[in-house]
Amino acid sequence: MSKSFATRMAEAVQKTKSVTCVGLDPRKAQLPAPIRDNVAADAPPDAWAAAYTQFCCEIVDVVRDLVPCVKPQAAFFEQLGPAGTVALGEVIRYASDAGLIVITDGKRNDIGSTATAYADAYLGTASPWGSDSLTVSPYLGEDSLEPFVEVCDQRDAGIFVLVKTSNPGGGLLQNRETDGQTVYARVAELVQHFNATRLDSFGYGPVGAVVGATYPEQLAEMRAAMPGSWILVPGFGAQGGGAADVMAGFDAKGLGAIVNNSRHIIFAHSRPEFADRLGDARWQDAVRAATVEMNEQLAVVKD
Amino acid sequence: MSKSFATRMAEAVQKTKSVTCVGLDPRKAQLPAPIRDNVAADAPPDAWAAAYTQFCCEIVDVVRDLVPCVKPQAAFFEQLGPAGTVALGEVIRYASDAGLIVITDGKRNDIGSTATAYADAYLGTASPWGSDSLTVSPYLGEDSLEPFVEVCDQRDAGIFVLVKTSNPGGGLLQNRETDGQTVYARVAELVQHFNATRLDSFGYGPVGAVVGATYPEQLAEMRAAMPGSWILVPGFGAQGGGAADVMAGFDAKGLGAIVNNSRHIIFAHSRPEFADRLGDARWQDAVRAATVEMNEQLAVVKD
Repeated sequence: MSKSFATRMAEAVQKTKSVTCVGLDPRKAQLPAPIRDNVAADAPPDAWAAAYTQFCCEIVDVVRDLVPCVKPQAAFFEQLGPAGTVALGEVIRYASDAGLIVITDGKRNDIGSTATAYADAYLGTASPWGSDSLTVSPYLGEDSLEPFVEVCDQRDAGIFVLVKTSNPGGGLLQNRETDGQTVYARVAELVQHFNATRLDSFGYGPVGAVVGATYPEQLAEMRAAMPGSWILVPGFGAQGGGAADVMAGFDAKGLGAIVNNSRHIIFAHSRPEFADRLGDARWQDAVRAATVEMNEQLAVVKD
Repeated sequence: MSKSFATRMAEAVQKTKSVTCVGLDPRKAQLPAPIRDNVAADAPPDAWAAAYTQFCCEIVDVVRDLVPCVKPQAAFFEQLGPAGTVALGEVIRYASDAGLIVITDGKRNDIGSTATAYADAYLGTASPWGSDSLTVSPYLGEDSLEPFVEVCDQRDAGIFVLVKTSNPGGGLLQNRETDGQTVYARVAELVQHFNATRLDSFGYGPVGAVVGATYPEQLAEMRAAMPGSWILVPGFGAQGGGAADVMAGFDAKGLGAIVNNSRHIIFAHSRPEFADRLGDARWQDAVRAATVEMNEQLAVVKD
């Protein structure tokens, strides 16, 4: 790949006219019946892993022309043990081959050569896992992020650093102020520092940020603090954030943010508005309808 | 298992009279020649994964009677892609079956049901990965740690929360003070809160803490702030920490802390003091000699 991660993201958003990121969070109990019923409850992990792969790859088939990116959640694959991570690898490859940008949500973090190992593992379509991007935690400080940024440079890949998360308890550490600056604002300052010398023609760099939809005021604050950063916004849909809550994340062209939705899209067959009309039997149609609905709610991309 | 994680750790330390944790950090270039030479540089990931499994399992054979625990570093296994995580699973099982306590170093973190998925994946010898314990990052706050603590309760497992890390940049966020309290001290307060109602007969609970050997003063401060917490001390050996730097981590009986050493033990065949005498051909003897040496440097356990 010759274009930077940020540029590919901007072009994918413009092409699809969508800022929706579909979160791939497979869970045994919530799989649609046509897939779940093929696996015995006490089946070995590789049977469930195959079900996860089928489920996620079918979602990719449904949404590939509708959205710029997908975000597989590593935790749910790892929950199946090693067989689950094999499925994660298959899903990443399938989505990437389908032309989607893949953000592996692993919230990894470590120091020095160990951080480099994670970066080498996940960043770039030619890497062992083959994803375009990885979510990363900042608790270990600047020298834990630098190895990731270096690999981003080498491979035209991206990362998303946890800045202000969507959960109620996120503020315990993130909101603490020192000399008037919160911890999350300090992380944002670091993110902007990394991007400042790496901006593309759209004005963005490889170091994205995670800022939850559940705190709209902080999203506006963070948009201003990190003008060079793609913001990954979780918390939309099932976690309670709505369209009005995420508008502050976008720039004037409707770029600069992608909004993740996992459960309300991938398990749309269980939502009241789709359950009767489509239900488990037509779960793929429910996924498509929910994705189109979200795209319409967030029609911010300008020509 | 009926004994708590903390109790099993205390008994393992007393039985081996060792506070050494052997870090299993396999890296292609540093493997001893008898293992490395069997794999072509361009061999596929599963060939390297088999080499990692062989290397780590041989280390387990060498140290199983000398130390209480081992700590596989997930990053180096994940660096090989899915095949590497299969090897990680094999190494965890092998070490656990050998009677060692296994701490998977994954520095995982997420919120709500996603955190529960990680906990379910790694915690307890009956879990999909089968480790006794997992390292966890606190950036997401209290509600990101609670699911891990709940699973610890259900399975007599443990976690180690990152508190004060050993890297130079760790202070960027961790040392920030609010009303006289640093971020790391706030995390320590939370750790102690979790343990307070869960103490065993040795005085320890399931929620351990990571505090680096490179900051001896903070180690003493953290020992006092978390009297109920096993402390995992990285940074000894290759990162520069010495025996005097870690003494503040132990209680009067020599319990309450385990000191990790990865490179200086597992790649001891490359250290000047062992290279000529033992070298690659007798790398297992170098591992054993380095482990015995570290046990002698840290002979703190009282009868």
